Amino acid sequence: MGKWKSFLLVTLIGAAIWFVPVPAGLKPQAWHLLAIFVATIIGIILNPLPMGAMALIGITVCALTKTLTVPEALSAFADATIWLIVCAFLFARSFIKTGLGSRIAYMLMRSIGDSTLKLGYVLCISDLILAPATPSNTARGGGVLYPIVRSLGSAFDSEPGPTARRVGAYLMATQFQGNCITSAMFMTAMAANPLAAVLAKQVLKIDISWGLWALAASVPGLVALIVMPYFLYKIYPPELKHTPEAKELAKSELAKRGAMSTPEKIVLAVFIGALLLWSTSSFTKINATLVALMGVCVMLITEVLTWQDILDDKGPWDTLMWMGGLVGMAGFLNKLGFIPWFAKTVSASLGGIAWVPALTILLVVYMYAHYGFASLTAHVTAMYPAFIAVAVAAGAPPFLAALSMAYLSNLCGGLTHYSTGTAPIYFGSGYVDQGTWWKLGFSASVVNMLIWVGIGGIWWKVLGLW
Amino acid sequence: MGKWKSFLLVTLIGAAIWFVPVPAGLKPQAWHLLAIFVATIIGIILNPLPMGAMALIGITVCALTKTLTVPEALSAFADATIWLIVCAFLFARSFIKTGLGSRIAYMLMRSIGDSTLKLGYVLCISDLILAPATPSNTARGGGVLYPIVRSLGSAFDSEPGPTARRVGAYLMATQFQGNCITSAMFMTAMAANPLAAVLAKQVLKIDISWGLWALAASVPGLVALIVMPYFLYKIYPPELKHTPEAKELAKSELAKRGAMSTPEKIVLAVFIGALLLWSTSSFTKINATLVALMGVCVMLITEVLTWQDILDDKGPWDTLMWMGGLVGMAGFLNKLGFIPWFAKTVSASLGGIAWVPALTILLVVYMYAHYGFASLTAHVTAMYPAFIAVAVAAGAPPFLAALSMAYLSNLCGGLTHYSTGTAPIYFGSGYVDQGTWWKLGFSASVVNMLIWVGIGGIWWKVLGLW
Repeated sequence: MGKWKSFLLVTLIGAAIWFVPVPAGLKPQAWHLLAIFVATIIGIILNPLPMGAMALIGITVCALTKTLTVPEALSAFADATIWLIVCAFLFARSFIKTGLGSRIAYMLMRSIGDSTLKLGYVLCISDLILAPATPSNTARGGGVLYPIVRSLGSAFDSEPGPTARRVGAYLMATQFQGNCITSAMFMTAMAANPLAAVLAKQVLKIDISWGLWALAASVPGLVALIVMPYFLYKIYPPELKHTPEAKELAKSELAKRGAMSTPEKIVLAVFIGALLLWSTSSFTKINATLVALMGVCVMLITEVLTWQDILDDKGPWDTLMWMGGLVGMAGFLNKLGFIPWFAKTVSASLGGIAWVPALTILLVVYMYAHYGFASLTAHVTAMYPAFIAVAVAAGAPPFLAALSMAYLSNLCGGLTHYSTGTAPIYFGSGYVDQGTWWKLGFSASVVNMLIWVGIGGIWWKVLGLW
Repeated sequence: MGKWKSFLLVTLIGAAIWFVPVPAGLKPQAWHLLAIFVATIIGIILNPLPMGAMALIGITVCALTKTLTVPEALSAFADATIWLIVCAFLFARSFIKTGLGSRIAYMLMRSIGDSTLKLGYVLCISDLILAPATPSNTARGGGVLYPIVRSLGSAFDSEPGPTARRVGAYLMATQFQGNCITSAMFMTAMAANPLAAVLAKQVLKIDISWGLWALAASVPGLVALIVMPYFLYKIYPPELKHTPEAKELAKSELAKRGAMSTPEKIVLAVFIGALLLWSTSSFTKINATLVALMGVCVMLITEVLTWQDILDDKGPWDTLMWMGGLVGMAGFLNKLGFIPWFAKTVSASLGGIAWVPALTILLVVYMYAHYGFASLTAHVTAMYPAFIAVAVAAGAPPFLAALSMAYLSNLCGGLTHYSTGTAPIYFGSGYVDQGTWWKLGFSASVVNMLIWVGIGGIWWKVLGLW
């Protein structure tokens, strides 16, 4: 659709909702905010302008129509969770700048990478190690690991086309699905995760800390990371199984780099320190954002990152803008009473369905609705608050609903070739054709659902979360 | 001083203040915040790291030491005035991107630029026209106008060295001083102006709106812009007085550009619209930040600015970071009672000096203290809140103290060759030697003081501000 048509459509939808009579039990202000919010989300989906621009226009319209005051519209720019992500983006930059990220991958490859299956695990483990501090799944999967996957393909004479299935196609599919799993495992592993945490707090009044997120994800996440490479190995096997040359390749890459540099050591120390403080924050009571800020300060003082690096990095600035806009609107949508009203209305109309089938249906719909999205963030913003609110109104335990949907918000990224930033990169490499990509994506999604909701559900019960 | 020495000094000063016994009548928390704030400002002055990095470290230390909570430390990132400046930076970018800024200067030059004195006025008027929407005085003076001044010099065979005094030296000095004056005239004409407005609100509980700032500055500002080029013409005359060729130069430049492009027209319309809404905001009650946001949205929708332009522009992102950090700390320094306590203590020790001599001394000290600063922002942050608080505690009318010091915060930029971002650019052109630069700067500062405090003071009395 052309840019102007999209814009017109967005405006018409917004106006249509705005002028519909306000349903009983709702403040007009809440309804008007809904109109602007829905229009903004449709704008993000149709994408006539980038997400940040749509979010900025959204809050401007809120202020202009007096739906929100100017300070209300801007309030989320001071949100601590958003600044956590801004800082984590800078962590990620330090991985890429110093080369520590790819060094870790090559070290793993040197020690265990002598079969194609093990190479699949090497990639997933490398991704897992980097995940807690790279909120851009695209930077991690696309920036750090993609070049390694691609060069592995070439190293084994596996190129897009007739030789794709030797090694490359399997590794591309595995690393892509692995990246979706690691994204789900930490609040700081994907940009929209803290958005989900903030929304869960706004809507359900539950606190999902960094540590809780990781703890609850640990069992299903590790199971999924163990199962997925093997599952794909079985349903989409590589032709070449043994790859002793990969160890040599890794050795020579590491030899080229020489010993670990001081900046790499500093980044590693900051990263381990941040992980320790993040994972123990429920005991130490040290705020996760403060931990991230401290890490950035250490990197600035030691000049591992310069201020210029920070200004040059568009990721944090972009994320601050779109997330600040969306979190602000979503927060007030809840505060002004729309979300509670919506949840009550929908769950009343469900009329006595037990929460287990209700939650199951909601989860399935939530997962596969992602066929219609080209951004995890758009999906979370559009569906997460309403879906968790309805699930809880239908009787589902709050943590169960909030966590399972938060994790699915990442796992759905494996469905298509446009589902999230890494998808076009890995798909675009040309190793896997579109039909296969979708089939693999659907199969992986079923495996993920079973592991995350099934095993995850039991694990969260053990943790006493429901 | 080396980077590490500066850092050590900053840390020692901070620690020294921290561990001094807390003066009676002050909360320890306020005193600790002072220690961090002073260390941050000294860090900004010594500059071991850029301002944004020092501000980020400052708020991190506040949060780490529990002097402020994390949400308190981050609170100013949602400040509406800061977002006004972020948006105004994007306005400025549109002037540069579309070439509208230099077109305006050439159009003025074409119509009246037939003498060196008139060329001085052309430059000042062009700067004045751009000033309301370019909060980076460096972008305006250095980015838009400097290339024109420099090419005017060359056009009249006036180069640094023996021919400098023909035309170039006079125009450099005039445009540099003019830029300081226009910076003072609008809240959005210099990045630290809204900081002063926010600080005045925090410390003195007075509201300096965009319109009030401009109205109060209008008379002294216009008088200064009329006087300064002529004053410099008398004390530092150019050798060549008549410059009919300048009109030809402007004509050919404009011919090269052709008719005004659609993006230029849009920028012009947005700019005029914003000026109208800003200057009438006391009647329309439309928030100045909202006006700026609307302007940015229009430019985004019409693609005069793309989202990529916004992400590429480091100015707004940088300013958000340093200003958010500093405003946060300064605000709590006041809220926690330090500023009122300081003002009371100092004014008590002044013991009965009438406010007129007290304010006069404060203003002179405030102005010439800038010999010790390389940044207007550092000067405002370090001295503005304390100086206005002391002045008012000594009996000076709040608006008189706040406005006069806010304007001087810009005018002091004319003193040296390192005083503000434009100074090294204009001085560095090589037309004026350092001794002369300082002499001209000092002379101009006396003229500015007389006009802004003298005529300004009378004008503000007429306006009923005191």
